[in-house]
Amino acid sequence: MTTETRFKGVISPMLTPFGDDNNPDLPRYREHAAWLLREGCTGLAPFGTTSEANSLGLDERMSLLEGLLESGIDPQIVMPGTGCCAIPDTARLTEHAVRLGCGGVLMLPPFYYKAPVVSDDGLFRHFAEVIERVGDARLRIYLYHIPPVAQVGFSLDLIGRLIEAYPETVVGLKDSSGDWNNIKSIIQGFPGFTVFPGSEIFLLDGLRLGGAGTITAPANVNPGAIRRLYDNWQSAEAEELQAGVTATRKAIQAYPIVPIMKAMLAVTRSDPVWRNVRPPFSPMDEATARKLLDELAESHGMTLEPA
Amino acid sequence: MTTETRFKGVISPMLTPFGDDNNPDLPRYREHAAWLLREGCTGLAPFGTTSEANSLGLDERMSLLEGLLESGIDPQIVMPGTGCCAIPDTARLTEHAVRLGCGGVLMLPPFYYKAPVVSDDGLFRHFAEVIERVGDARLRIYLYHIPPVAQVGFSLDLIGRLIEAYPETVVGLKDSSGDWNNIKSIIQGFPGFTVFPGSEIFLLDGLRLGGAGTITAPANVNPGAIRRLYDNWQSAEAEELQAGVTATRKAIQAYPIVPIMKAMLAVTRSDPVWRNVRPPFSPMDEATARKLLDELAESHGMTLEPA
Repeated sequence: MTTETRFKGVISPMLTPFGDDNNPDLPRYREHAAWLLREGCTGLAPFGTTSEANSLGLDERMSLLEGLLESGIDPQIVMPGTGCCAIPDTARLTEHAVRLGCGGVLMLPPFYYKAPVVSDDGLFRHFAEVIERVGDARLRIYLYHIPPVAQVGFSLDLIGRLIEAYPETVVGLKDSSGDWNNIKSIIQGFPGFTVFPGSEIFLLDGLRLGGAGTITAPANVNPGAIRRLYDNWQSAEAEELQAGVTATRKAIQAYPIVPIMKAMLAVTRSDPVWRNVRPPFSPMDEATARKLLDELAESHGMTLEPA
Repeated sequence: MTTETRFKGVISPMLTPFGDDNNPDLPRYREHAAWLLREGCTGLAPFGTTSEANSLGLDERMSLLEGLLESGIDPQIVMPGTGCCAIPDTARLTEHAVRLGCGGVLMLPPFYYKAPVVSDDGLFRHFAEVIERVGDARLRIYLYHIPPVAQVGFSLDLIGRLIEAYPETVVGLKDSSGDWNNIKSIIQGFPGFTVFPGSEIFLLDGLRLGGAGTITAPANVNPGAIRRLYDNWQSAEAEELQAGVTATRKAIQAYPIVPIMKAMLAVTRSDPVWRNVRPPFSPMDEATARKLLDELAESHGMTLEPA
């Protein structure tokens, strides 16, 4: 029996701060991680879509992960994104994360080439080869299903084939399809598989079916409320807590979600550097973030604590 | 005045051979390059979509380019693809190509994040930062517009802004939109800009308007006929030559174009290793390729010479 290190709860796909020179800012990165954990996140998922991961170079990703872990965070609660378009790059980032002791990795499918040229067979062979190249029994992969952005996703059949071939390695999935029926089919179709809806909107419904929690962008700015819902999902106030986090999310995602969350942090931390995003994103102005923060405080009682 | 090194004619986005160990095969790569140039290609574009470039790791791309140039090919006729999702990776590959003396680079836009979060402003800042990071007056960029695959493309407005800001650097574009009206608008809208339709179907029409030739996948298997059309586009037989290459292309692209072309080379070179594709692609069987080759020989007189 291997020691199980499956993730659960509220996991933040960490925002990546950039300095005015457009390079990643490690001190702010570490501060943000510490704040997220204090506010209630149970795990960190650096290098997700929210992290502008695909705007970071391979070297930057490895160096940020090392810097994060050197601050003393338990690597077992860290699930870095490692899925690139090419097998060697994915294997390199994955190997690095395993070597650092990370409890799992969140793996995008290769996303440049698309259907119909790319089939489930081709995707299966991609993952098989990554797993074999890494060749480490400690590896735990969480598949990252986000078809609205990556365009390439995981069919139920492909998920089943990967679990069957690599039951100790392919242990979970983040579903950012935004499609409740898909989330439901995966939770119900693969008992024992660790499924995270990619939005807190589905947190309560997911937990009721056997989901593991959520890995969700707004956990960067609203971790406390999402955690309260997670802790109290079987209580009488669960529906009300769900309504609150749902309303907050909807208000945030009315804007480009990464720039607006960064601008929100710039306001609450009185730190304009937090506004910076790397191209191809464009930054959001603080006035818009301030207005949104005021609205959220008034209508949903969401008040963002400074770091 | 700088020496002008603008590309023109028939440029092959080179297929990348993989050994049975799934690693790039340099000897076959060099042989293929030599064959393409003997058969009439005027330039080589390694690491395009046809090259499975996005299935190659950063290190593999640099090492293949070095290996190719060490075989004695003039780097001024080589236009490697260098566009990745992240600025540091794109800058690294681009710097490397410029340092090796390449006449230009073919640059994809960052393709993970998409509209509406990604705007022309964000894309402009991405390219501006790559150009400034590379910081080399020898750099010549050919924009790579392939929205059917990359999803992110270049609007006329963005092209105009990049040319205006970097007239010596942003010198051309490959248009693989498949949309003749778009190709026409770019050729007519930006006089002096070097425009390559991404399909030989538009070669004659493009040349008549001032296009520079074509950068096209079938140049890997049908370079001679495409070159004959290029050389004779003002002759009386131009329409007939165009009809021939168009028919050949249509027959080839009825299949997944990279696997079928590799299987065609496996047949004509009696070298099954050429069938190999890297996941997420799946290989094509030789029987299908043989049937297609027979059809092409019969109906269009296209006979593939062995390497």
